[in-house]
Amino acid sequence: MNADIITIGDEILIGQIVDTNSAFIGSELTKIGVNIRQILSISDNESAIINALDQSIIKSDIVIITGGLGPTNDDISKTTLLKYFGGKLIIHDESLKFIKSFFAMRGKELTERNYKQAEIPDSCKVLLNKSGTAPGMVFEKNNTLIFSLPGMPFEMKELFINDVIPYIKEKYKLPFRLHKTILTEGIPESTMADLLKNWEDNLPEEIKLAYLPSPGILRLRISISGNNKKYLNIKLNDEIDTVVNLIGNNHIYGFDFDTLEQKVGNILLEQKSTLSIAESCTGGKISSLITSIPGSSQYFKGSVVAYNNKIKTDLLNVSLSDLKNFGAVSQQIVEQMARGIKELMKTDFAVATTGISGPGGGSTDKPVGTIWICVLTDEKVMTKKFLFGENRERNIIRASFSALNLLRNLIIASL
Amino acid sequence: MNADIITIGDEILIGQIVDTNSAFIGSELTKIGVNIRQILSISDNESAIINALDQSIIKSDIVIITGGLGPTNDDISKTTLLKYFGGKLIIHDESLKFIKSFFAMRGKELTERNYKQAEIPDSCKVLLNKSGTAPGMVFEKNNTLIFSLPGMPFEMKELFINDVIPYIKEKYKLPFRLHKTILTEGIPESTMADLLKNWEDNLPEEIKLAYLPSPGILRLRISISGNNKKYLNIKLNDEIDTVVNLIGNNHIYGFDFDTLEQKVGNILLEQKSTLSIAESCTGGKISSLITSIPGSSQYFKGSVVAYNNKIKTDLLNVSLSDLKNFGAVSQQIVEQMARGIKELMKTDFAVATTGISGPGGGSTDKPVGTIWICVLTDEKVMTKKFLFGENRERNIIRASFSALNLLRNLIIASL
Repeated sequence: MNADIITIGDEILIGQIVDTNSAFIGSELTKIGVNIRQILSISDNESAIINALDQSIIKSDIVIITGGLGPTNDDISKTTLLKYFGGKLIIHDESLKFIKSFFAMRGKELTERNYKQAEIPDSCKVLLNKSGTAPGMVFEKNNTLIFSLPGMPFEMKELFINDVIPYIKEKYKLPFRLHKTILTEGIPESTMADLLKNWEDNLPEEIKLAYLPSPGILRLRISISGNNKKYLNIKLNDEIDTVVNLIGNNHIYGFDFDTLEQKVGNILLEQKSTLSIAESCTGGKISSLITSIPGSSQYFKGSVVAYNNKIKTDLLNVSLSDLKNFGAVSQQIVEQMARGIKELMKTDFAVATTGISGPGGGSTDKPVGTIWICVLTDEKVMTKKFLFGENRERNIIRASFSALNLLRNLIIASL
Repeated sequence: MNADIITIGDEILIGQIVDTNSAFIGSELTKIGVNIRQILSISDNESAIINALDQSIIKSDIVIITGGLGPTNDDISKTTLLKYFGGKLIIHDESLKFIKSFFAMRGKELTERNYKQAEIPDSCKVLLNKSGTAPGMVFEKNNTLIFSLPGMPFEMKELFINDVIPYIKEKYKLPFRLHKTILTEGIPESTMADLLKNWEDNLPEEIKLAYLPSPGILRLRISISGNNKKYLNIKLNDEIDTVVNLIGNNHIYGFDFDTLEQKVGNILLEQKSTLSIAESCTGGKISSLITSIPGSSQYFKGSVVAYNNKIKTDLLNVSLSDLKNFGAVSQQIVEQMARGIKELMKTDFAVATTGISGPGGGSTDKPVGTIWICVLTDEKVMTKKFLFGENRERNIIRASFSALNLLRNLIIASL
C-alpha cells in the first residue's frame, strides 16, 4: 500500500516555512503500515498541481494533498481539483453553518471570500473541518483515494487523525508494520556499523535497520512488517534484545522518543535525588538541557557557569596552584569543580565540564576539542577525557550529551 | 533559471526527521534569483533516485540532491550516481587526506568504510567536505548541473554556501537580486504588519517584503530585482532606512546574519566591558547563547543558574523576607538577583531572569508565561515584566532573547 504526499505553497519552496506537515503525515501513515513513496512540494500553480496528481494517481493508492485551500487569490487547490475531477461547485451546508458560527464567535463579519470556502465540488466527499474555515475533501480515481486538506498544521492534524486515518483503514486492508528506535550516545556511525555488521548482514528481508545520526547521538531504527501482529511483536523484541546486547547498556539511554535529559530527570525524580552542575566549556548548555524538562526544579538545584578562573577558585574552591600546575583543562580541575559545586549547592549528584570548545585556545598538548567531564557522588567518581573536533557548536553539544550520559551511568551504578 | 531539490532518506518519508535542508537550500537559491520548481523527498532506493533524476534533469537547470552519502549499507546515493552518470570509482586524494586527519585528530582508527568515503566517481567534480567524511559531488548532463551533498545539515550548509552557490553563480548569468534582512526582537508579526501596512501597500512591483517569524525574533527580508545594480543598491538602502525609522532602533538588533548574542558580544568586547548572568526561569539558556560565540571568554565571566530559592539567598544575596513577601517572580527579586550576581562576579553589566516557564506553577496573579527581566550597571537599571504564552520551550527562548535585547539597549544607553 503506497501513499504520496503533495504539499502546495510557494512559501515552502522559497524556504520561508519548513514543511512539518509531511513529517506528521508520513509518521502517522507509517504507523498504520502504509508505505510513503514520496513527498513532493510544489508551487501554487495549476499545471504543477495537475502534473503531480497525474503521476501520483498512477503510482500510489493514496494521495494526501495539503495547502492552497485558504481564502486568498493565491489559493487555487480547490478550483484545480474541480477542473481535474470534474463536477460543479455546490454549497456544503454543514460547513457553511460551521463557518458562520466560527466568525460569529469571534465577533467578525462573514466576508464573500469566507462564504466561498463552504463551496465544494459535488465530485468529492466532504471532511468537516471543526477548527478552521476550509473543509477537507476526498476524491477517488482509478481506485486511488485523493485527500485534500488545509495547510495550517493544527487544522490538518485534526482532520488527518479524526477523518483521514479511519477512512483509509475502512477502505484498505493493511499489513502490520512495527518500529522501534534504539537511542545511543557516544558511538560514531561507522563504529556502530562495524559492531552490528554480522547481525545486519544476516537479517531476514522483512526486517530493516536505519542509522539516524545527529551530533553526539545515534538513533537506530529497526522495522518489521508482515501479517501476524503477535509474531511481529515477539520477533521485533528479539532483534532489539540482540542489538542492545551487542551495543551494551552504557551507551543506550532509551528508546523511541526518549531524550537523555528526560531520562536523567526521571531517574533523579524517582530516587528523590538532587543535581548541580559546574560548566566551563559547555557554557550553560547542560543546565539548559536539564531545565528544558517541565518539573526539573524538583531535582535540579542550580549551576555555576565558570568561564573565568577566578570564578573557579572563588566559588568552586578550585586550587589556584593546581590551576597553575595542571591548567584549567585537566582531570584535577574538573574533579575539583565537581566537588566544589556539589559542596556549594549541597546536592547528591554533581557534574563538571572543562575543555577547549574552539575555534581558538588549542595547543599541541591540548588541541581544540579536548574536553574533561566529571560526574560524582559522595561515594563514586567517574572522570573521562574526550577528544572531539574543531567545530565549537558541535563540541559543546557533544560534550553536553556525553556529560548527561556519564551522569546517567553514574546514577544507575549508584542505585 | 529553475532548480529542483531532491532529498533522499527513508527517515524523511516516515516522518522521523523533518526535512530542514530543503528550506535552507530553497531560501539560499531564492536569494540569488533561482526559482525553485519543486522539492521531492524519496526513499534510499535506486530506481526512485534514477527516476527522480530523469525528470528533474529534463525540467530544471540545477538539481540539488542531499542525503545517502554516509558510510552505512543504506547509503546508496554514490553508487546510484555512478551508475547513472557513468565512470568508475577513484580515490580522491585530498578527501582521503582530510578523512585520515579527521580520524587521527579524534584518536580513532580509519575503518574500511571510512576509507571508501574518499572514493568518488571520476565523472564528477569534487567539493571537499571540511566538516565531515562524505565529499560533495558535481555532475553535468544536458546542460544541467547536479550537486550531491551530504544530508547532515551542518556539513550540507557549509558546502552549499562555500562551494555550491559560487559554482552556480559562475556557471549561470543570473539577474541582479539584492536582499537585506532587518532583524527585530519584541514585536509580534501582526503588530509589525499593521505598523508597515501603509509602506507595504505602496511598494513598487520590483520590491518584495517577506515576514520570517521565529519565537521572539521577527526577520523582515526586503528584496529588489532588476538590471542596474547601482540603482538597486541605492533604492534598497532607501527602503531599509524607511522601515528602520518606522520600527525604531530599540527593537532592531541587526541585519542579515547578525545574531543578538554576537551583537551584544561585539559591543562588550569593543568597550572592554564584562558580563555576568543570574538565571532562574531561563535555566542556563542565556549563558548558553552568550558562550556560543567564539571568544566570549573575553567578556563573559560566568553565571549562576539559581533554580532553587536557597541558591538565590545564599549565592546571590537575595533577601529571604522579600522572597516571602513578593514571591520569587517579582520586580524586587529580579533586581536583587542582578545586583547579587554583579557583586559576586565583579562585572560591569549583569542580567537576571525570574519567571514561570510552565507548564506548571502558574496562578491567577502570576499566570504561566509571567517573566521578569532586569539588566543593570552601577549607574543604570532597566527592569521589565513580560507576559508570554503557555509553551515552556517558547517562553524560555523568548525570555532569553528579550533579556539579550534589553541588555543591548542598556549597553548602548551606557556608551
